[in-house]
Amino acid sequence: MFDFQLYTPTHVVFGRNAEARVGELVKAQDAKKVLIHYGSGSVVRSGLLDRVRDALYVAGIAYTELGGVVPNPRLSLVYKGIELAKAEGVDFILAVGGGSVIDSAKAIAFGLAEEGDVWDLYEHTRSAKACLPIGVVLTLAATGSEMSMGSVITKEEGWEKRAYDDDLCRPRFAIMNPELTMTLPAYQTACGCVDIMMHTMERYFTSGGNMEITDSIAEALLRTVIKSAKVLVEKPMDYDARAEIMWAGSLAHNGLTGCGNNGGDFSSHMLEHEMGGLYDVAHGAGLAAIWGSWARYVYKDCLHRFRRFAVNVMGVAANGTDEQIALQGIEATEAFFRSIHMPTSFAELGIQPTEAEMQDMAKKCSAAAGGCQGSAKVLYEADMLAIYQMAAAL
Amino acid sequence: MFDFQLYTPTHVVFGRNAEARVGELVKAQDAKKVLIHYGSGSVVRSGLLDRVRDALYVAGIAYTELGGVVPNPRLSLVYKGIELAKAEGVDFILAVGGGSVIDSAKAIAFGLAEEGDVWDLYEHTRSAKACLPIGVVLTLAATGSEMSMGSVITKEEGWEKRAYDDDLCRPRFAIMNPELTMTLPAYQTACGCVDIMMHTMERYFTSGGNMEITDSIAEALLRTVIKSAKVLVEKPMDYDARAEIMWAGSLAHNGLTGCGNNGGDFSSHMLEHEMGGLYDVAHGAGLAAIWGSWARYVYKDCLHRFRRFAVNVMGVAANGTDEQIALQGIEATEAFFRSIHMPTSFAELGIQPTEAEMQDMAKKCSAAAGGCQGSAKVLYEADMLAIYQMAAAL
Repeated sequence: MFDFQLYTPTHVVFGRNAEARVGELVKAQDAKKVLIHYGSGSVVRSGLLDRVRDALYVAGIAYTELGGVVPNPRLSLVYKGIELAKAEGVDFILAVGGGSVIDSAKAIAFGLAEEGDVWDLYEHTRSAKACLPIGVVLTLAATGSEMSMGSVITKEEGWEKRAYDDDLCRPRFAIMNPELTMTLPAYQTACGCVDIMMHTMERYFTSGGNMEITDSIAEALLRTVIKSAKVLVEKPMDYDARAEIMWAGSLAHNGLTGCGNNGGDFSSHMLEHEMGGLYDVAHGAGLAAIWGSWARYVYKDCLHRFRRFAVNVMGVAANGTDEQIALQGIEATEAFFRSIHMPTSFAELGIQPTEAEMQDMAKKCSAAAGGCQGSAKVLYEADMLAIYQMAAAL
Repeated sequence: MFDFQLYTPTHVVFGRNAEARVGELVKAQDAKKVLIHYGSGSVVRSGLLDRVRDALYVAGIAYTELGGVVPNPRLSLVYKGIELAKAEGVDFILAVGGGSVIDSAKAIAFGLAEEGDVWDLYEHTRSAKACLPIGVVLTLAATGSEMSMGSVITKEEGWEKRAYDDDLCRPRFAIMNPELTMTLPAYQTACGCVDIMMHTMERYFTSGGNMEITDSIAEALLRTVIKSAKVLVEKPMDYDARAEIMWAGSLAHNGLTGCGNNGGDFSSHMLEHEMGGLYDVAHGAGLAAIWGSWARYVYKDCLHRFRRFAVNVMGVAANGTDEQIALQGIEATEAFFRSIHMPTSFAELGIQPTEAEMQDMAKKCSAAAGGCQGSAKVLYEADMLAIYQMAAAL
């Protein structure tokens, strides 16, 4: 067991019509001028943006707006947001959307709080000392950014996608109404479920020293997501299943599922990152497509964890050798991914990287990780290439 | 499933020697003058108080001190603390101890932040609008006060024991070093485990509408506490078991295990409260002594929850009728309590209330609850009396 810290200051307001409380929650933050930050048409079409505007108006809070956030949120829009917010005297950012919108809001909030180029943070040449307060009205269960310390921004020039983690940007409040996720396409819903599972599993598959209470909470969370994701395939409007997944999404990435572990593995995320750099694939689908190959490549080095996962999460009977049980757990996970129409190979994902492209991906992946990555098994460039090749051969 | 809010702003710093960071953590709160609040000799004898003093001194933070907190912390000491802290210009309270010390610190912090008698809050004649910031160095795993919104204070005059819940008093940070709990007597350790379990179980046994992810997290927590408590009977210095229990104690009462339920039951706590009013019994032991009788009295009205508890927490085989399984779960829980030397009846607790005393306890209990209490089954005065009589007849 390792020492840990946990800091989850976000005030969660969860339930039907929770967005009606946005005015009150912003007001409690003593905000004078709010930047409402959002993405594309869906929050406009659904009427959510209007409801948020109305709530702020009724609460007597002035606001300005910036839409246009896209998946893999762009640095150029972050700069635009900083400029606009400075000109307008904004002192609070309200993100209305999913992970990309929240991440973009975090970057703007960092940029407003201090002098200097905010991209420095994402290049890790300095650390932030301050961050404007942020609030969230969540419309998508996936990234967990609504409670997390992380944000990922893409610089268009050179297509550099970089992450910055800092407790300072954890949102002050997160409004979560599961109903707001009901109109998502099934594919996006399933991608979100995979992302949530991976945030948990990448903290779970470590080389040892985990805490029993953390492991068992992680297993509980994973079982719930699996069960609820299957429900949503048949009944996308099922409130309870939407709610279970939405709440799991926050708990999966706010730190709770990593308490006492050695920091986690996160190789699947790193491997997928390069796939996303080369192809326009949805993050969750990319994770599902690579996970099985990663698992088969590493499981022998982390057998007791894969065995435990198989039995406690995937319900595999504890008969046979540890290796047999572990492999059955991997197979059951892949079968689950397919049952929610997620890919488990490059072919199913619809990509066909050449050998040279895979070599390039492995090179970039190991470079981004500073040479190697992983805890269940430490992966070097050759290992990464081997995993890509396995996913390509399926 | 019910709507919920969760607000857990406490920065948790968990692990060996974590108390060495107290200076840095207090400094991060911009504190100028700290009141170190503590209980009796144990934090002095162990050298912990000296280490805390040294850490503040090294961090350049001025402090004053007030010891003497006793179990069922007293209003008179709270008043004394408020007076002292006002005179000394205290702007931060550091509780070094267990639940009683933290609760006393919370009351002092409320009293310092606003004009008026702080007892008003505990009498519920007004709500707090402010509270001085609090930090915690935890020495006992039980009440969960280190992350909770609650505090319980006893007014000596008339021996009135009252609770006040308010997010404002959630500690800013909680330093948790499991090693600090190793010297606790076995009886107190076991009492803490029962208290932690009850905080979870009283949120679990409700009349319905629970959230699956919350239920399964609660079950994970309970299984971990049971397993670890048994380890500590044989090996009181086992760091991992101490750590599992310490972290479970915080999670059991910070709100996480109640997300999406209907507010919980809390009848066992209410029933025990009156036993504690009449006899000098340890809170956890009192809870263990009454729980089985409560469970047998109410389980038929909440059969699906008792059945689930039996299978998922106590490991009862799912054979037989729901009623048989539920009863086996209750028996297994009592057997567990006895295995850690906790009582499961009034006789084992060492109390022998007369019929008149039990009638009086039931009357006070229902009055304190505003007439009735409970969710698994709503209990009125006659029900409460019946439960006391059951525990007395065992």
